Amino acid sequence: MAVSRRTFIEQLAVVGGLSLAVAGMEALGFGFASAQAAPPPLTGKGKGVRVVILGAGLAGMTAAYELTKAGYDCQVIEARSFAGGRCQTARKGFSHTDLIGHTQVCDFDEGLYINHGPWRIPYNHRSTLHYTKLFGVALEPFVNDNDAAYVYFQNGGGPLAGKRLRKGQLAADMRGYAAELMAKAAGKGGLDLPLSPADRDRFIGYLVSQGRLSPKSLAYGPTEGRGFDVYHGAGLDPGPGKLSAPFALADILSSDTWRALEPLGDHEQQLTMLQPVGGMDHLAKGFERHVGKLIRYDTEVQKLTQGAAGVEVFFTDKAGKSGSIQADYCICTIPLSVLQGLDVAVSAPFKAAMAGPAYAPVNKIGLQMKRRFWEEDHAIYGGHIATDIPGIDTISLPSTGWQGQKGVLLGYYAFGADAARISAKSPADRAAFAVAAGQKIFPEYAESFESAFSVSWHLTRYSQGGWAEWSDDARASAYPVLCEPDGRLYLAGEHLSYLGGWQAGAIESAWQQIAKLHARVNAA
Amino acid sequence: MAVSRRTFIEQLAVVGGLSLAVAGMEALGFGFASAQAAPPPLTGKGKGVRVVILGAGLAGMTAAYELTKAGYDCQVIEARSFAGGRCQTARKGFSHTDLIGHTQVCDFDEGLYINHGPWRIPYNHRSTLHYTKLFGVALEPFVNDNDAAYVYFQNGGGPLAGKRLRKGQLAADMRGYAAELMAKAAGKGGLDLPLSPADRDRFIGYLVSQGRLSPKSLAYGPTEGRGFDVYHGAGLDPGPGKLSAPFALADILSSDTWRALEPLGDHEQQLTMLQPVGGMDHLAKGFERHVGKLIRYDTEVQKLTQGAAGVEVFFTDKAGKSGSIQADYCICTIPLSVLQGLDVAVSAPFKAAMAGPAYAPVNKIGLQMKRRFWEEDHAIYGGHIATDIPGIDTISLPSTGWQGQKGVLLGYYAFGADAARISAKSPADRAAFAVAAGQKIFPEYAESFESAFSVSWHLTRYSQGGWAEWSDDARASAYPVLCEPDGRLYLAGEHLSYLGGWQAGAIESAWQQIAKLHARVNAA
Repeated sequence: MAVSRRTFIEQLAVVGGLSLAVAGMEALGFGFASAQAAPPPLTGKGKGVRVVILGAGLAGMTAAYELTKAGYDCQVIEARSFAGGRCQTARKGFSHTDLIGHTQVCDFDEGLYINHGPWRIPYNHRSTLHYTKLFGVALEPFVNDNDAAYVYFQNGGGPLAGKRLRKGQLAADMRGYAAELMAKAAGKGGLDLPLSPADRDRFIGYLVSQGRLSPKSLAYGPTEGRGFDVYHGAGLDPGPGKLSAPFALADILSSDTWRALEPLGDHEQQLTMLQPVGGMDHLAKGFERHVGKLIRYDTEVQKLTQGAAGVEVFFTDKAGKSGSIQADYCICTIPLSVLQGLDVAVSAPFKAAMAGPAYAPVNKIGLQMKRRFWEEDHAIYGGHIATDIPGIDTISLPSTGWQGQKGVLLGYYAFGADAARISAKSPADRAAFAVAAGQKIFPEYAESFESAFSVSWHLTRYSQGGWAEWSDDARASAYPVLCEPDGRLYLAGEHLSYLGGWQAGAIESAWQQIAKLHARVNAA
Repeated sequence: MAVSRRTFIEQLAVVGGLSLAVAGMEALGFGFASAQAAPPPLTGKGKGVRVVILGAGLAGMTAAYELTKAGYDCQVIEARSFAGGRCQTARKGFSHTDLIGHTQVCDFDEGLYINHGPWRIPYNHRSTLHYTKLFGVALEPFVNDNDAAYVYFQNGGGPLAGKRLRKGQLAADMRGYAAELMAKAAGKGGLDLPLSPADRDRFIGYLVSQGRLSPKSLAYGPTEGRGFDVYHGAGLDPGPGKLSAPFALADILSSDTWRALEPLGDHEQQLTMLQPVGGMDHLAKGFERHVGKLIRYDTEVQKLTQGAAGVEVFFTDKAGKSGSIQADYCICTIPLSVLQGLDVAVSAPFKAAMAGPAYAPVNKIGLQMKRRFWEEDHAIYGGHIATDIPGIDTISLPSTGWQGQKGVLLGYYAFGADAARISAKSPADRAAFAVAAGQKIFPEYAESFESAFSVSWHLTRYSQGGWAEWSDDARASAYPVLCEPDGRLYLAGEHLSYLGGWQAGAIESAWQQIAKLHARVNAA
């Protein structure tokens, strides 16, 4: 599972870095620290202090927006011809040339798009939601869980391998069997239940409810929740319908499909998930409407020097013309994967720390289908198809345009070696790979396919990776170094957060760094 | 829980009526019988055959739409001044007078509404989705499950009683504790696992994944999935954040809040749930655009006679003027709760069967709030607050207008005796009750409240109940009688389906009855 692999690394980091004692429950239960819900109040002096910001992604534009409001004199240097950084949406006419040299121009129909960068806004990312609200970016739910979605695992064993199964049926069966085993054991004293007799009865009640067991026999069997072979309906036929028979426990286990059932994992993945209506780049455009006039586009940073008096950033513009900007401070949001290759005047420990994180190979492909067969023929409205087909990992169905004619689905969302292998192909071959794989699950796939657009973030200029991945060691040694300024240089971005790869990490990192910078200016 | 009570009755019915052997798995896994996905093909003769349809709800309009397409000469008699039956949406200016005599005129702000009748379209109700697509009714997801939503139970015991808790935290804890107990017992041979050693290891892997257990100790403890006391974020503070501590198992059990955790229950309640953009009555309006010209509004049926030659329906119009319509056949969609009081010429067994089902007391109240505090202050985006406050049962937050200024939430959705008790109050007192109850959960409730609109279906003229509830006995004896025509009279509506209270039940019932009628016409 795509999500889990990333999660796994992040969870290791969380656990590894967590030396703090667990505090008492906060009022709201989920610990929404106010520092993450709103930008820092930059009261005091800021007027006229010059800040050069490298990168017009979400971190850079957050810094530019908030500092400008506080009176700072900001300039933003952006290598791309547009703002947003990795916050991109591909729609008709969007052009992308990767580091191999493949150029693609998106040819989706009007109104269709793929978010090949960030695509989800978790309800608990209050920082991101602060700006969607502020900038009037319309939101809609992103279907991040769908009981009707298929699970397709081909590498396991047994009769369920290579079959498409409904996630809700797998979940019902596994919960049912587990609850039955447990409820029966509890009755026979096989469990060490540290409970009063009344609570033990409640616990069995919980198992009955979770597993949809027979309250009498505690057996798991066909239930309405698992679904029907013949759906219930009107009259006498189908009338009550015909309930479906559970899969055998051993068959589910040997197929490995149970691995696709991961409730309540990452806190970010939980319900309700949101997305901007019409594409994630509407968030970037919201920022751009306010700070666009400060951005120097098509301008590549070459070198940064700094001294007691300030910083100087040397750049080359689109025409190849060199120039420089002097400022009092610099906020650099360039990914470390790129920054390491630039001539940046920082201390040796800081320079060494910059090599700390790895950058994730990640790729996505959008496939325009001329018919929404997943809705029409399969009754799947949004959500993710989990598969162990190498290089696919996740197929995701659009959470918008319901019951329309066409749609763009996400044909793969892969990581690491799988992503690197597929990304090495030409765009046409990547599409052919994705279509052939999807065909295993949906017989309508190939005949419906019209057009593809793929992005490999590790092969994307000015990004060179999806996000920073921190090992425990690097998180302990390098990360704290990079969170502090080096002279007059402050780094910001998702890489300086525990929300790696999330827009909230970029925004909150910028909030922290501008707060530090502002405190320094005011202390001066 | 509101949903469960209704479910319980329906599940009993399903189980009670299910004498059929469970058939083999169908191709699609969920058994979407084609008979329920599309209207019956009415080929052959229908031209000029006169059908009088009683009621312009979804069943009546479905019959009128499909029969007219096949050449039948349809007239529809509707007691209300608008079409849709129970498919209603209250927005500014909508007026409702109940059987007690209370009149309310909805005073919500422009753009705000409450679906006081049906409010959800399950993804597996292909019949309803057939018409939303056909009529171009725009859909959006309805948030039917939300990990961040509160659970508030006041009637249980222990330290968690009367506290608002996040559903995701309760679910994580219960799954975690259950998985830990089970995984440890499995290791010690306490479970009778009918599994090979390899599958036993996979089963423990499943438990580790479900419970987010330590793979080593198999212990449940703080996990990212459960959530944070201090949310993780950027830099070093909050950095990794502080994970929250689980509630004690015995405390959850004694609080009864575990009863709010009911995954994969009713098949209809599963993900993805949908709703029409702007209000459920857009579905009714879709039908009305096509069959509105056939409807005689404000016209009450008084009497129906039938003979070998046809039927005659006697009615009174708004002005009190009497009239009648003669036709070859009649399709009657009037709820049995109402129909029993009319003078209808049917056989004695049919008449007796009409008393078969009970009609559910159900009420809903929409509360306009001047601020979306549930989103702004509590990070709850849609979904349901489960509570055991009598007469509230469910508070539901809107699945539209995200991050807007105001919103209308559902203040209660209650059934049976609770609904009857609250419905007996004046509209102002119902609102006061709902606001005072909600205040226990959200401190912003009372200060944000602006305007209310409540409907009690058992007190609603021409409905007299939310939906038909069938006992096992009545389902076995009365239901089959009513599914067949009595002479030239065919009944249709949700009451003649196993999808009680769902629009799909009304539509599919109409499909079945017009297919029968058409077969008879063609056999004649």
